[in-house]
Parts: sequence; C-alpha cells; structure tokens
Amino acid sequence: MSITNKEDQQAVTPWEVSSKVNYDKLIQQFGCKKIDDNIISEIETLTGTKVHRLIRRGFVFSHRDLDVLLKYYKEGKKFYLYTGRGPSSNSMHIGHAIPFLFCKYLQEAFDVPLVIQITDDEKFLFKNITLEESIKYGEENIKDIIAFGFDPKKTFIFSNVEYAHKFVKNSLKLAKAIKLHQGFKVFGFDENSNLGQIEYPVKQIAPAFSSSFPFLSKYKMCLIPAAIDQDPYFRLGRDYAKILKEKKPASIYSTFLPALQSESKMSASDEKTTIYLSDTRKKIKNKINKEAFSGGRDTLEEHRKYGGNPDIDVSFQYLRYFLEDDKELEEIRTNYIKGIITSGEMKSKCIDVIAGFVEEYQMNRAKVTDEDIKKFKQELDL
Amino acid sequence: MSITNKEDQQAVTPWEVSSKVNYDKLIQQFGCKKIDDNIISEIETLTGTKVHRLIRRGFVFSHRDLDVLLKYYKEGKKFYLYTGRGPSSNSMHIGHAIPFLFCKYLQEAFDVPLVIQITDDEKFLFKNITLEESIKYGEENIKDIIAFGFDPKKTFIFSNVEYAHKFVKNSLKLAKAIKLHQGFKVFGFDENSNLGQIEYPVKQIAPAFSSSFPFLSKYKMCLIPAAIDQDPYFRLGRDYAKILKEKKPASIYSTFLPALQSESKMSASDEKTTIYLSDTRKKIKNKINKEAFSGGRDTLEEHRKYGGNPDIDVSFQYLRYFLEDDKELEEIRTNYIKGIITSGEMKSKCIDVIAGFVEEYQMNRAKVTDEDIKKFKQELDL
Repeated sequence: MSITNKEDQQAVTPWEVSSKVNYDKLIQQFGCKKIDDNIISEIETLTGTKVHRLIRRGFVFSHRDLDVLLKYYKEGKKFYLYTGRGPSSNSMHIGHAIPFLFCKYLQEAFDVPLVIQITDDEKFLFKNITLEESIKYGEENIKDIIAFGFDPKKTFIFSNVEYAHKFVKNSLKLAKAIKLHQGFKVFGFDENSNLGQIEYPVKQIAPAFSSSFPFLSKYKMCLIPAAIDQDPYFRLGRDYAKILKEKKPASIYSTFLPALQSESKMSASDEKTTIYLSDTRKKIKNKINKEAFSGGRDTLEEHRKYGGNPDIDVSFQYLRYFLEDDKELEEIRTNYIKGIITSGEMKSKCIDVIAGFVEEYQMNRAKVTDEDIKKFKQELDL
Repeated sequence: MSITNKEDQQAVTPWEVSSKVNYDKLIQQFGCKKIDDNIISEIETLTGTKVHRLIRRGFVFSHRDLDVLLKYYKEGKKFYLYTGRGPSSNSMHIGHAIPFLFCKYLQEAFDVPLVIQITDDEKFLFKNITLEESIKYGEENIKDIIAFGFDPKKTFIFSNVEYAHKFVKNSLKLAKAIKLHQGFKVFGFDENSNLGQIEYPVKQIAPAFSSSFPFLSKYKMCLIPAAIDQDPYFRLGRDYAKILKEKKPASIYSTFLPALQSESKMSASDEKTTIYLSDTRKKIKNKINKEAFSGGRDTLEEHRKYGGNPDIDVSFQYLRYFLEDDKELEEIRTNYIKGIITSGEMKSKCIDVIAGFVEEYQMNRAKVTDEDIKKFKQELDL
C-alpha cells in the first residue's frame, strides 16, 4: 500500500509522487507539523539572521520536533544535519537543488556538521540499472553536491555501498526491531518486492542516529532536511530511537519544485518538464518560453486589461524559489496582477534568474576535482 | 511455511529440525541426490585415500552436483570449500564437530582452501540475544573451530558483522534478484519476520560464489559441506548463480548426530541431551551411562540370550560417528547382536572413544590464542 488519498489521487511515497500535491493534506496524512511564525522567529533569534527564502515563502513548510531541536540547541547542545541523494543517470535538475541550498543555509546559520548519504544501493534495488551504473552515477552526484559550496571541514558525503558497513551494528539492531508488516504498511512493499528493498529502509534510517558515525559522538540530536516524500523513513526511525538509546531525530520538509507544465513535480527522467543543472542558458530559455505554464491572458490586450495570475504561473513560482530579493519579487507579483508585466516579461525574468543560478552552479561544478571527492569522503574531524 | 512433511511431522528448516529425521524422505523433499558407490570410488581415485568414515558409514549421505565438481576437479580446475557456524552462548557439542571434521578431511584430501562464515548477524536476528553477545560468542566459536586443526594458510574464518561488506556487491545483486514470495516459500518467513531476517539469506548465499572473495579469483567452483538443514540457502543460491555469472555451487550434506535419548538431533540448548566439547570425562561418563538410549535387553540374562540391537543403540551410533577402525566397529556390532557385548560394555566403549576425542580436542582448544584468531581472519594468500 502506498500512501494514497483516493479523493484527489494523491500518492506520495519515497518512490512515487504523483499528480499535484496537496501539502496541507499531506501534513494531516503524515502527521507532521506546519512551520509557523513562532518557529520562524525562534530560528531567526537563535541564528541571528533572516530565515532562508524557502522558509519565508512556505516551500520549507513542515517539520517533526523542530521545536524540540531548537530548544535543545538553545541549551547549548549540539546537533547535526543529515540528508541524502539517490543517484540517477540524468543530471540533477533545479528541483534537486532545493534541499541542498536549504541544507547549506542551515549548516551556515547554525554552524553544524552535515552528513550526506548517497543511496547507490537503493537506486540499484529499486530501478532498472546495474549496481556498477548506480555507483558511477553516485560518484558524479557527489561532485554535483560539492558544487553547492558545502564546507568540507563540516560535510561528510558517503556512498552506502562503500560506507554503510561502518554503521552495520545500528542497521542490524533496527532491522531486528522492525517487522515485515510494518514495511508493508509504511512503504507499500508486497510479495514481489525484492529482499534488498525490504531491508533497505534501515540503511536510510540508521544515519539519523549519531552513534552511526564515530566522529559525531558529541552530537546527540539529528535534524533531517529532506523533501516530504522521505518522511515515512524518519517517521519509522523515530519509533525505534529507543532501540539505539538515542534521541528521536527532528526533520524539516520541503515541497517539490513544480514541473514546467505545473501538473506534477519536476522529474529527472522527463526531459520536457525539467530544467537540468547542466542545461545551457539557451536551452533554459527555450524550455521556459515553450513549456512553462503561464498565468497570463490569451492576448496582450486582455492581459493589460485584466492582468495575469501569478499563483498558477510557473515562471513566477520558479522566481519564488530562486529570486532572493523579497521586495523585487513582490513588485513582480503585483505588476503581473495589474497587467503591467506581460507573460513574456515574466518568462524573461525567470530565464535570467534560473540561467544565472545554473551558470554560477556550472562554474562551481567545473572546478570540482576527484581530490575534492576524497576530501568530502573523509570522516570529519570535529 | 517451513519445509514440513505432514505424514511424519518432519520439519527441517535452517531454524528448526524437529523429531526424528527421515533422511531418504528429506532427499526427496529437497530434491538432492544420494551419495552412491560410484561417487565414493571416484573420490577415492581422485584423492588417493579412503573416504572419511562419515561417508563410508552413510552420515554424509547427500549432495548436489558433487559429480559435476569431481569432473571439474579431474580436469585440473580449482574449487574451494565453504561452510559456516552460527555462534551460540553454549559450548559447541560433539554434533557440531561432525561438519568440521568432515571439512578438515576434504581440505586435506583435495588440498583446497576453506572459508568459514561465522553468522553472528543471523544469530542476533533470529535469537533472543544482543548483537554484542552474538559477536562475543562468535569470537569464542572461532577458537573452537581453529581447535579442529585447520591449516591457517588455507583457511579463512570471517564474522559477517565484520566482513560481509567485502562482498556487499554480490549480496546486493542476489538481494535484488530474490523476491519476497520466494523467501516466504523457501524459509517460511511471514509478516512477523523482521527486516533483517528477510535479507539475511543473501549473506549466507553470497560466499558460495568465488567473486565474493578477492583471494579466490582462480577458484571458480565451490563445494559446501554442511548439515542438510542448510540446503534451502544453497538450493536458492544455485538458482541465482547466473546473476553473478558464476558456476552453481556443489554441496555435500551430513545427517544430525542424535541426542542421547535418540529422539531428535543433539541440541546445544538442551544440556540433558547433549555432550559438549567442554564436558569432562566424568561428565561424559555420567551422561552416557545415565541418558544414552540403549538397544540392550532389560536383563543381562535376556541380553546374553537374545542379543542387543545396535541400530537403536545411541552409544553404538556415536561409535559409528567417532570410532575410526572399521574392523573394530564391525566386531562390536556383531558381538552386541550376539549378546557377547553387554549394554554396559557398549556404553563403556563409547565413553572411552568420545571422552578420548573430547579430551584431545580440549588440549588443542587450550592452545588456541588471540594471535591465532588474527591469523585465521587474514585473507588468504593462495
């Protein structure tokens, strides 16, 4: 059984995010909490900086025990960040950038270590690729991640195939505690699932506990920034924290960047709906101009007269994700509603911002060397 | 579902061997072959020595592809031996010695390397013990195994918790290929099985393929000496040899040493039915005198007149396992049938032989050092 809401055909599992996602319903279904103004102001007080635009604009929208974690941090106690990436053959797309941009903000704002799991085992077990391919894509993805500018002194990136044995004791303890019927219920496994898929969840859960890493012995609590579809893992993990005599991990969840057509989340396997981090400015321009769903009117005349709808305009939504300046964003929004900004101008602004982001990313990506991979794969000296 | 024959309530799975085992039926159920005279004479020709008494007396009774393996060996190709041991808190008993005595004979007769898996992960996942206990028992059991006198240059002993990551790629490939419904069918898993139990079989199957060990690259075929209850693993493993582009492993299976009361196999957890490798001569004497089921008559008079039945006499059965001299054994048998040897004399002979074996074993066991463990845990240089 996948986590499905029949009413609107909303299926969100770690392997499937179908159709348009109703995030309020998801919070209800999953039983996590909304990020409210109290939490936001507490984060700003503790870090001394404005929260990231992804929080300000509601894209990082939900959490578990973030309030507990902030209280813990306020008492001078240490926490670490844990996130992950499932390698894929295609280049990462701009939607994949979201959790990493957010991780980077958290790492800097709270000055905390970050561990990043490359789930090369998972992709092999769940997708039609060879293990060797999955490992190779994972190596490439490590470079992709390094290019976001993480601090190598505080960031540890590991491949499951390579490193998971280091936390095998925690994995075994979790694997003994979790029964198959729970795997059926939480992940929708069935009799045709393979033996590896069924055991995999413990590999993703274990790093949410600091005893999985020798260098995190002073860090007793974990905060997991992730896309909301990963919640089933950590919801289950929280139930078994006691097995490892550890604190329940806190989590903070982001929405999915919409596809160009805005019908569902951006997908790496669907070229037409997706802007890759490897796309050229020209390609980005063509894709946005041709594919990005517009909230503008059918004719320029109507648009000037009645104005556009930014809420359904994908270019404007992308700006909300990637344009930092709140004031400028608000001007664009109101001028679009008034018909002062045309659909073409909205797309043009979006192209500028996205292509600017992607080009800067590509410059950083080009500089990443095999030496850097080694550096990030080294256990931290904290 | 366990592998059960309703007719005689015969349940033999890797975790359960109930009641008296009908081995002919088991061969039928499992679909393996009987070891016949042709195979025995082929082994003797190839090795230039008489086969081990365990084969001569039908205790090593069944196989898969042993004929294929012998042909392969005859062509000058290399094979290796693979067996295992599930650690337990109790000392190993004399029944546990059987597969190791047999392995030692095979190693010497064919001059081949042997890998021995200590399934500390399995025991933790299936039994009510902590992981730390299982690992500790495993270390003790490594010493127990070394005491059988294996050649350290040709014998590699590994703990799964410590070493299984070295063959993680083969494990993952097997885990992706084997579906849950097969786990249900072959091992009797159900919805209350834990996630670790379900994935465990790939850990036991993987070492049956030489690519799991870097030092076995020239050894393309595997022979698994084991007790027959382990067959489900290797039957399944044979079906997936193609996944790893390897030869199907051959296997050769032994019966279970009967308990003192002869009702079922000897069990480490049932003190009363069992002679431990750590028992003193006095303890062995008491156990055999008091508990060993006798095929003798109720009175000495009747015994002298009608003779005893060696087939149901546990002391005589133990002699069949442990007394090397065929001629002496046959004399004991016929003289028992004739009533010349009494039940007490049979027990006395059995005590001598078993206590002699155990005392010699204990002398060797006392000499095993932590340094030896290190030696046997080193990957082989072949």
